[in-house]
Amino acid sequence: MTAEIISVGTELLLGNILNTNAQFLSRELAELGITVQRQSTIGDNHDRLADWVSEAKDRCDLLVFTGGLGPTDDDLTKETVAACYGDSLVFDPEEWEKIVDYFTRMGRQTTPNNRKQAMVPVHGEKIPNAHGTAPGAWFEQDGRCAVLMPGVPAEMKAMWTEQVRPRLLARQNCTLHSLTLRVLGGESEIEYRVRELLKNANPTAAIYCKTGESEIRITARAASDQDGEAMCRAYAKKFYDILGDAVYDEDVPGLAYTVIHTLEAKGMTLATAESCTGGLIAQQLTAVPGASNVFGFGFVTYWEQAKSKLLGVDLAVIRHYNVVSGPVAAQMARGAREASGADLAISVTGLAGPGGGDEVRPVGTVYIGGAAGDSVWVEKFHYIRLGRENVRARAAHAALELALRLLQGKAPAGCCRLAAADCDHPQALDALDRALIL
Amino acid sequence: MTAEIISVGTELLLGNILNTNAQFLSRELAELGITVQRQSTIGDNHDRLADWVSEAKDRCDLLVFTGGLGPTDDDLTKETVAACYGDSLVFDPEEWEKIVDYFTRMGRQTTPNNRKQAMVPVHGEKIPNAHGTAPGAWFEQDGRCAVLMPGVPAEMKAMWTEQVRPRLLARQNCTLHSLTLRVLGGESEIEYRVRELLKNANPTAAIYCKTGESEIRITARAASDQDGEAMCRAYAKKFYDILGDAVYDEDVPGLAYTVIHTLEAKGMTLATAESCTGGLIAQQLTAVPGASNVFGFGFVTYWEQAKSKLLGVDLAVIRHYNVVSGPVAAQMARGAREASGADLAISVTGLAGPGGGDEVRPVGTVYIGGAAGDSVWVEKFHYIRLGRENVRARAAHAALELALRLLQGKAPAGCCRLAAADCDHPQALDALDRALIL
Repeated sequence: MTAEIISVGTELLLGNILNTNAQFLSRELAELGITVQRQSTIGDNHDRLADWVSEAKDRCDLLVFTGGLGPTDDDLTKETVAACYGDSLVFDPEEWEKIVDYFTRMGRQTTPNNRKQAMVPVHGEKIPNAHGTAPGAWFEQDGRCAVLMPGVPAEMKAMWTEQVRPRLLARQNCTLHSLTLRVLGGESEIEYRVRELLKNANPTAAIYCKTGESEIRITARAASDQDGEAMCRAYAKKFYDILGDAVYDEDVPGLAYTVIHTLEAKGMTLATAESCTGGLIAQQLTAVPGASNVFGFGFVTYWEQAKSKLLGVDLAVIRHYNVVSGPVAAQMARGAREASGADLAISVTGLAGPGGGDEVRPVGTVYIGGAAGDSVWVEKFHYIRLGRENVRARAAHAALELALRLLQGKAPAGCCRLAAADCDHPQALDALDRALIL
Repeated sequence: MTAEIISVGTELLLGNILNTNAQFLSRELAELGITVQRQSTIGDNHDRLADWVSEAKDRCDLLVFTGGLGPTDDDLTKETVAACYGDSLVFDPEEWEKIVDYFTRMGRQTTPNNRKQAMVPVHGEKIPNAHGTAPGAWFEQDGRCAVLMPGVPAEMKAMWTEQVRPRLLARQNCTLHSLTLRVLGGESEIEYRVRELLKNANPTAAIYCKTGESEIRITARAASDQDGEAMCRAYAKKFYDILGDAVYDEDVPGLAYTVIHTLEAKGMTLATAESCTGGLIAQQLTAVPGASNVFGFGFVTYWEQAKSKLLGVDLAVIRHYNVVSGPVAAQMARGAREASGADLAISVTGLAGPGGGDEVRPVGTVYIGGAAGDSVWVEKFHYIRLGRENVRARAAHAALELALRLLQGKAPAGCCRLAAADCDHPQALDALDRALIL
């Protein structure tokens, strides 16, 4: 089965808004085994839209429209597409009642224009919209279909998931089951290692790159949910066999979520001490609902005196080793743990750029610390040519990765360990500094 | 002049990546006075691409391509478009030398495939790529043009700005000058107030909505830069006349940037105390290069004991008024100022949801505090039905807005003022609480 996606809206052609609908629908259609041949964006113009539909209708089995279902004169997707599929529209009192209700609940009045939104296909089907005023529409002629959904992403996604996707699955007489693996590590390296597994027909597997990690989405088409689940599980095992514990979780939104829930499961708490990431780690942790169960204290210590006052970092250590150094990362982590009483603390000190940096510590040099039990761990990273924003994002990700690994009792290779009590001992700090510089 | 934008890449049709190039180019072309009639995305497939180019070539004056200039067999935009414009490609030793140099600098070796990237138009022009290996191309036939750029956004944007835009301007025998106003306040309200000014032909003005603010971009086409600048300035005055000091800055990336640079100009420093925003404000401030000149201390006090220990908030005040209350926001701001020694401190305490909330304090209730000189100010906001992420984003924006207004000596209307010394006085806190609850 082949499809094209059409986004209707002059505001898209002017670049006023970013088209995220096309990406969402492309992923969803790919999972349904439907090949997307084109994505197009057209303005709210009757003639151009009619021309386009006439061309596209013969090229593929399914046209998926978003946008142009609103109440204004500009919104003409429904009548234009209806005509192209030999259909017409009729006023639907039931939809009109829903629209009036919706406006009443919002404390607003309908206008005569809103009646337009209650027009539905005579031969095709209306598609209920549980999250807005405009119903969608389904047209069909000679086995070729068109589906029309609203342009507002939240309304479109809900209508897709609740109404359109199930219709397409029913036509294919199958169900879909998905499983998403979250994988730590360099993106292109992960893709290379699993490349053969990405070529399968059913289940399919696709890889999406994120900051410091990748997402692998496995999707099975099967006669029942149970079969689909079993197929996904069996295929996931092939990824685990290759990637091992680089796979850190399944079906979660990201690393901060897993760190929060691992802490909860272990009844432990976390604190953060951030220099170059400047609050980014705390922000990511607190973006997870329920973070307050395990996270209470975050220190953004951008200045040396803040590191000293809030975390007890020794100013002499900063002077001796540099503020961007392993000894400072170690003292920051230890200090955050002590000042907060948390079970685990993570710290970051680095040079995000664009200014600063020298031969020993170029822009992109970052030290990550972790303190738990009677130990402190420090790692060093070089993020070369990434730019300020990406250095910060990668550093935050690396700190969360260290937190997760310490919670799992698996300190990463390349990490230096120090007794917490040795964080003030010159010889121990010297050894740490040397180990990390080399 | 009319144009279409064509993004080439199967990874776009699979939804693996979000197409941000089309939005960027749409905005840029609109500024050049070129009407974008369609945006399309096609896969790396010779026949479909050739069909598409043949159709589109006759519909408009300019086709703008991104993607498909890489070294692999899949990358066939250049040869396909060349054929459609009656042109062909030839190996260019100069480009090849650049590619070899580039690989050498990166410590990598070229492969035979890379020679493909050194193929350039025979009749058309090659377009230098200063930021990657693939040169772009320009084809022309009977006054109709096609321009080919790389798909990697950073390379594409640089080539557009440095090479393609100047060519298009030279053809139009004019220059462009732009001015961007940043405006605080509700987006639809701002748009309504300036709607008549958005309909002008030259200068044009477009409004883009952001969290808690809008961006108004004024663009003039003129014979000289000087004329363009004068036209923009005169047109900007019309916006200032309507919007007054809701316009907070010009040609800056956002509010955090303006706050940092206003602090710098005044020789003042800032500290933050965040509960529900959880580090988001500190993160936004430290995303601005040079933030370390004015920002040194950020407190993420997610728990009551963190508010008490780090900021000296009275636990009895939390118990009496609720942790989400005006008195707590006031004590947080005062405490952050004292603990950091900063000239100005801002604080946030609120309910981002999804859990919690009651009739008096529904989810979305946020108190923002500011402390400077011998005063503390507190504001209350209700962000209804926004969801956790948006409540946090709006609250962070409101806190930065308060910081800016206090720096300008213009406390917002609806803000309650309290003497800093009264932050511990039961009567003063009672009065503040009542004033904000009502």
